[in-house]
Amino acid sequence: MQHDLTSAEILGPGEAVMVTWSDGVCRRFHAVWLRDNSPDPTTRDPGNGQRLITLADIPQDLKISKSAVSSAAELTVTFQPENLTVVFGSDWLHQNAYDSNTRQGAGWTGTDIERWNCGLQTNVPTGIFDNIKNDPGRLLAWLADVHRYGFAKLVDVPTESGKICDVAELFGYVRETNYGRWFEVRSEIAPVNLAYTGLGLQAHTDNPYRDPVPTLQLLACLENSADGGESLVIDGFKAVEILRTEDPAAFDLLAGHCARFEYAGDEGVALTAKRPMIEIAPDGELIAVRFNNRSAAAIINIGFDQMADYYAAYRKLSDIIDRPELAVSFRLAPGELFIVDNTRVLHSRRAFCGEGHRWLQGCYADKDGLLSTLRSLEKAA
Amino acid sequence: MQHDLTSAEILGPGEAVMVTWSDGVCRRFHAVWLRDNSPDPTTRDPGNGQRLITLADIPQDLKISKSAVSSAAELTVTFQPENLTVVFGSDWLHQNAYDSNTRQGAGWTGTDIERWNCGLQTNVPTGIFDNIKNDPGRLLAWLADVHRYGFAKLVDVPTESGKICDVAELFGYVRETNYGRWFEVRSEIAPVNLAYTGLGLQAHTDNPYRDPVPTLQLLACLENSADGGESLVIDGFKAVEILRTEDPAAFDLLAGHCARFEYAGDEGVALTAKRPMIEIAPDGELIAVRFNNRSAAAIINIGFDQMADYYAAYRKLSDIIDRPELAVSFRLAPGELFIVDNTRVLHSRRAFCGEGHRWLQGCYADKDGLLSTLRSLEKAA
Repeated sequence: MQHDLTSAEILGPGEAVMVTWSDGVCRRFHAVWLRDNSPDPTTRDPGNGQRLITLADIPQDLKISKSAVSSAAELTVTFQPENLTVVFGSDWLHQNAYDSNTRQGAGWTGTDIERWNCGLQTNVPTGIFDNIKNDPGRLLAWLADVHRYGFAKLVDVPTESGKICDVAELFGYVRETNYGRWFEVRSEIAPVNLAYTGLGLQAHTDNPYRDPVPTLQLLACLENSADGGESLVIDGFKAVEILRTEDPAAFDLLAGHCARFEYAGDEGVALTAKRPMIEIAPDGELIAVRFNNRSAAAIINIGFDQMADYYAAYRKLSDIIDRPELAVSFRLAPGELFIVDNTRVLHSRRAFCGEGHRWLQGCYADKDGLLSTLRSLEKAA
Repeated sequence: MQHDLTSAEILGPGEAVMVTWSDGVCRRFHAVWLRDNSPDPTTRDPGNGQRLITLADIPQDLKISKSAVSSAAELTVTFQPENLTVVFGSDWLHQNAYDSNTRQGAGWTGTDIERWNCGLQTNVPTGIFDNIKNDPGRLLAWLADVHRYGFAKLVDVPTESGKICDVAELFGYVRETNYGRWFEVRSEIAPVNLAYTGLGLQAHTDNPYRDPVPTLQLLACLENSADGGESLVIDGFKAVEILRTEDPAAFDLLAGHCARFEYAGDEGVALTAKRPMIEIAPDGELIAVRFNNRSAAAIINIGFDQMADYYAAYRKLSDIIDRPELAVSFRLAPGELFIVDNTRVLHSRRAFCGEGHRWLQGCYADKDGLLSTLRSLEKAA
């Protein structure tokens, strides 16, 4: 959308400029902010877009001496004492205007995130391996679903062992860990992790004892003839939104204190991390949920007077996570996989047993690669 | 250190127990906390140490009916209505006591972290490749230095291309990114990143446009006959401590608001992240510094009224980072590398030019693997 500039007015003795658009929107920009973000070739490398100057290169006595709307799409600004004239795009200014920004309440998420509950059951976002592999438009659509819902399925995936890494490499990079580039999830005699048993598992995020936590997890099915073993996914962002609505003080307790997680089930491995179960950015954005009953360590980050309330809050979140109306469930067939945003969506499985076999393979990857590919495809579309 | 238990007293109608040690230390523990952390084999898997129960398995009307010091090293607690008796180790209780925990001021770090300035120049933590490869004690010492200082050198590293990944794999796992498993750092004709030029670079943390950011970076020298190109490292935790001392309001502004970072210099890559330059955990611990003039995007996470102050704070931090008394500098010779904790230590290089060549290779890895190996070696030592 084109935003037409109509006027520019210098404020104070050149400390800022006030810009007005034809729709009446009016925004102020500081001289130092404009100078730091100047798109001219002495400030930004025209090839790779990186900034060539540091703050020390910007004069302390910086002022705007002149500013004008040179066209509906362009604002020119002249900075002193450098006597440097720079052209800013109207749309860029409109998009990056910060004038009226205020802090939102804790727990918000962007409009590109859609929270869900069991209602998504009938409309599970699903891609087809060959399609997303060969058609950038379909890859874009599938990645956009992963970003929007924090979860998607992929079907018709070749069932060769280790193939799961190829899926991760369609959009990003495998995060190798002590479990390997990919790992087996099946019943074992002396399991180093309860995931490698037939036990049911409460919905959880993976590896909260790791920092940085793997931000994506893929789980692919190679064989599934056991009784039980259905997969469930739960939107952690929905769960904590419910908690915040039903008990804001509980939300604040879990967001305001660190929990601890640990894993030392395998030789040579001693992982620990200390992070809140609900992670809020300084601007209030909900950015991560960590929840895992198996690897929660003793919580010591809160005093005696608040511990009972903290545990009550923790139990409330756990109860919400266990509510059937939050879960989307499915039985993975060989050649099917699902991916979760491991900072948001919890997964679990029902217990399995019987004569048959349940054989899954998992791997971790990171959101930066996925989101980079998504944005890049969106730009190209 | 052995902590001898002397007495246990049930508080209220079984809601907590007060434990006293022979040194007079007295700590209270809630019933629900003890039950959740019970080490008995029905609660914790004896093999892998993972918790077998969820909070829903703990009765809402949980009470402690009996508690006694069964020996100087053991506390027994009986829970109702389960009528479950569990034995807790004295040392474990002492270590995990939370009774008097209070929140510290923002910006603290643990006693295992030592901040430094140019004084470290004469005592740069340095390991020898063959030693750390073959001697777990020397690997432990080197990893402990990396953890303590967020920085260390390694010498006598084979100069074969890609060998840097072998170093990362001595203690953890390579984090592959769009730059590859490892990447070349040398002057290029059409560089996708200013790192691949002869320009001097302001001290920075790498890839703040990535989330999760790579938490470790290794840079190895294969050739260095150019004029200039010295490497510098700066303790970001020291820099922000100085900022907090000299200007607490500036510290709060940078910690309390998100900056944004972006990189799109390469085809198919569009990375962005929004995180504060100074990251503080909910308990006030300083956990990360992000600083990179080249990839800082427009800051829009703060309103007009605070932007001038925010920029003044940003400039102050930038000025502190540029102070020569903070930097440790060295000229990497072929076969030498350095590693930095990329959430803490900034690195930079002086400009280089002339007839010779400067050829470095870099790779990313993550702290979870390094710290896991370190703790595991400490346990075994």
